[in-house]
Parts: sequence; C-alpha cells; structure tokens
Amino acid sequence: MRGFIIICLIVMEVLEVKAQDIMNKDQMLVRISEIEVYPEYLEEYLSFALTVGATSVQKEPGVIAIYPMIQQRDSCQVRILEIYANDEAYKHHISTEHFLTYKKGTLHMVKSLDLVDMIPMNPKTMSDIFRKM
Amino acid sequence: MRGFIIICLIVMEVLEVKAQDIMNKDQMLVRISEIEVYPEYLEEYLSFALTVGATSVQKEPGVIAIYPMIQQRDSCQVRILEIYANDEAYKHHISTEHFLTYKKGTLHMVKSLDLVDMIPMNPKTMSDIFRKM
Repeated sequence: MRGFIIICLIVMEVLEVKAQDIMNKDQMLVRISEIEVYPEYLEEYLSFALTVGATSVQKEPGVIAIYPMIQQRDSCQVRILEIYANDEAYKHHISTEHFLTYKKGTLHMVKSLDLVDMIPMNPKTMSDIFRKM
Repeated sequence: MRGFIIICLIVMEVLEVKAQDIMNKDQMLVRISEIEVYPEYLEEYLSFALTVGATSVQKEPGVIAIYPMIQQRDSCQVRILEIYANDEAYKHHISTEHFLTYKKGTLHMVKSLDLVDMIPMNPKTMSDIFRKM
C-alpha cells in the first residue's frame, strides 16, 4: 500500500511538471475568433462549435480554453476566445479529426471569419484571473 | 484543537455554499468590452486597466474574471473579457472606488467604447473550459 502511494505521488509530481511545461505563459497563443454565421444555419453551427470546443479542451493537453459566446444584440455574431499553450499546440489542434469535422461541416454556414490574435495583458497572473471559474 | 478544526470545517462549508450561490451560471453577465485608445495614452491606459482588473477580481467576490487583451495587429484596440456573477455584482463593481478611479482617470484616453454583452454558449461547463488556467 505504501509503495502504491509513493508511486502515485511520483506520478502526480511528473504530471505537475508536465503541466508547467505546457503552460509557459509567454508562448501562449490567445485569439478572439470573430465569426458571422448565416441565420438559417445558426442553430446547426452552434451545435458544431460547442462540440468541437468541448472535445478539444478535453482531449488535447495544449488546448487551454475554448470559450464560445454569441452577441446578445446579434445572435449571428459568434465570438470564440481561444487559448493554446503554444504554436505547436495550435498546429496540432487544426490537424485533429474533431477540428477537421467541424471545419468541413460548417464551411457553408460561415459568412465571414476573422482570426484576431491577441496579446494578453497579464499572462503571469492568468491563474488568479480565472481562479473563480 | 479539535474544536478549532471543526470550526474551520464549518467555515469552509459555509464559504463553499456562498461561492456556489454567487456562481449561479445562468445569471452571469458576460461581456467583451471593445475599447479604442488614443495612441499617445496607450501605455498609461494599459497600466490603469491592468490595475483595476486585478484589484476587482481580488476584492470583489462577484467579479468572476476580468481578462484584458490587446490586438496584435493594432495595439490601440483593447478587448476585455469581463464576467460578473450577476447584475448586482456588476452594479456594485461600477460603484467601487477602484473602478471610479480608473473610469475618471482614463476618460480622455478612450477614443471609442462599445460594451458588447454576450451569451456564453455553455455556462454549465465553464469550470471544465477554464480548468487548465
């Protein structure tokens, strides 16, 4: 039993170090995707977007957060806050099956798409900013 | 000593319940503030924005997150993701001294301001979305 606990502690330590590697906050890619959807496809598009976001955060260690929102004043205006650990994590993300399914499945639903890369003003304090989540 | 531990556990339980009350995710106010700053005031503005964001998250239980970013392609374009527990938390926020200091101090630095209220697409899974933060 004691051996098992020690192994668990070592595994936790390794995972912690790995998580810190992934989360080098200076290398993060932060983006607000600004998407306008054709009204007739809105519901179907939102279902696609929701699925791909949840799957990506769950399955890809380098996808830190994908937070999709729609404007209250115009529900065809979708904004997605996307945070990737680094460029490699993003490149991996757009090569996954779940992303390609979303991309191909929604191409005809999207009127316009603007990928706006952002610089977070305080990457070091990000965990404090989002701790209440 | 045992009594002290029991009191600590009760306090933790109460705090937990309080946090859950605050975080009724259907009542959350989610906003992307779109701000254009005059270039000559950019640095000063960013310092103000950073301070008020950090102070608000730290001091106000109802301020869930304030995440300021600037566009890579145009550093005068600031976007702030703001998440409040509910309308009351927001009303309280804009009455605080730190917010009023920011507001009055930066009024002449801001060229345009658009407060765009958003509907988060999956409020229930928000903790999963941001768990890697």
